[in-house]
Amino acid sequence: MSNPTAAMIVIGDEILSGRTRDSNMHHLAGQLTEAGIDLEEVRMIGDKRGTIIAAVQAMSAAYDYVFTSGGIGPTHDDITADCIAAAFGVPIDVRDDARAVLAEHYAKSGTELNAARLRMARIPDGAELIDNPVSAAPGFKLKNVHVMAGVPSVFTAMVASVLPTLTGGAPLISKTLRIERGEGDIAGPLGELAEAFPLLSMGSYPFQKDGKYGAHIVIRGNDTDQIDRALSQLEAAFS
Amino acid sequence: MSNPTAAMIVIGDEILSGRTRDSNMHHLAGQLTEAGIDLEEVRMIGDKRGTIIAAVQAMSAAYDYVFTSGGIGPTHDDITADCIAAAFGVPIDVRDDARAVLAEHYAKSGTELNAARLRMARIPDGAELIDNPVSAAPGFKLKNVHVMAGVPSVFTAMVASVLPTLTGGAPLISKTLRIERGEGDIAGPLGELAEAFPLLSMGSYPFQKDGKYGAHIVIRGNDTDQIDRALSQLEAAFS
Repeated sequence: MSNPTAAMIVIGDEILSGRTRDSNMHHLAGQLTEAGIDLEEVRMIGDKRGTIIAAVQAMSAAYDYVFTSGGIGPTHDDITADCIAAAFGVPIDVRDDARAVLAEHYAKSGTELNAARLRMARIPDGAELIDNPVSAAPGFKLKNVHVMAGVPSVFTAMVASVLPTLTGGAPLISKTLRIERGEGDIAGPLGELAEAFPLLSMGSYPFQKDGKYGAHIVIRGNDTDQIDRALSQLEAAFS
Repeated sequence: MSNPTAAMIVIGDEILSGRTRDSNMHHLAGQLTEAGIDLEEVRMIGDKRGTIIAAVQAMSAAYDYVFTSGGIGPTHDDITADCIAAAFGVPIDVRDDARAVLAEHYAKSGTELNAARLRMARIPDGAELIDNPVSAAPGFKLKNVHVMAGVPSVFTAMVASVLPTLTGGAPLISKTLRIERGEGDIAGPLGELAEAFPLLSMGSYPFQKDGKYGAHIVIRGNDTDQIDRALSQLEAAFS
């Protein structure tokens, strides 16, 4: 049985302009791998309504789980929630449960819950809230799409809230062998090994550091015994 | 006149599994912005033939320039070059000009140009080589698709080789104002400003650091005067 599949949509002009370096994708990728969910595609797109809607529709249909980051704050360029509602053809408005979360949070600091902040309580009909222990304003889940914040500390906290609700598969096991030989010398034996173990995936990631060079060979799969056998055959070939 | 558009395809299972953190996207994004080329979409996908071909075809048709990173090394999992050839329906084989580059490079170090290394001279018919001053094995350009290595030092060098060949537009000018107020307080005046300056794009990027919080407001556009006027209006609103 194969693992559930996932995709991520990173939303924000600041990522595409190079102003901000995204770190959410790398975090989510590691978490999903540990949970046995295969992240198969990531799209990074700008704050454009049509683009966001099209990506959400395409990826929601193609993958078991979809995760978005970015565009759910209080400013005019935060349009993700409205785009998600449009993508699924459901109404969106300030919702009482989300407003209550914000009201409680801002009351503590004596901050006014003004019109801009209330935008963060706009939740599409039928969505479940995602807990935000960092700054209160919730994410939400609609169908198979999990809508989360772009600020890394908040994104990370929301992923932690969401993970226990996902159904994972067999976690991918991964073992690495460091070989101090040129990739061109490793490629032949590695290719034969890959053919001999069709259920394993083998990757070669070259390095060059402190005057040494070579490659990290990563063998991935669901069966530890097979991975260990492949690893020792590879080791034997280069000893 | 609007700027030329671009898209990037980051290829590699190691990115999607979270093993490797991609840095090429952020580098390319900054370089393209400086050159006046709008990066509109990035897709990160695995080492799967069908997926790579589909992404290349879709993005080559939709954008002026496409850039790929990853999958052009000597090992069995390096399938990008063959996928590019398939995407455009052209033959691919070891090409004399690419073989000559490799032969010269490996002769210097007394390294054998074996079958695996020769794979890196497989270039689709009609492609132009992209210079690789780091490790010789060339990238290539076919139609509007620039195929480059995944190793960051090589990718960076190839981007430097490619940039002078691209036709840029007006470089995007970007100025930032740091406001130490909650985003919820900034949102109202910022939204009005965005309406008053429809040709400018305004983004709000909240921060929380050393006990202070607020947002960096980034105003982007092609017209410095307009940006400066918008910036001083915003400054006035929060002084």
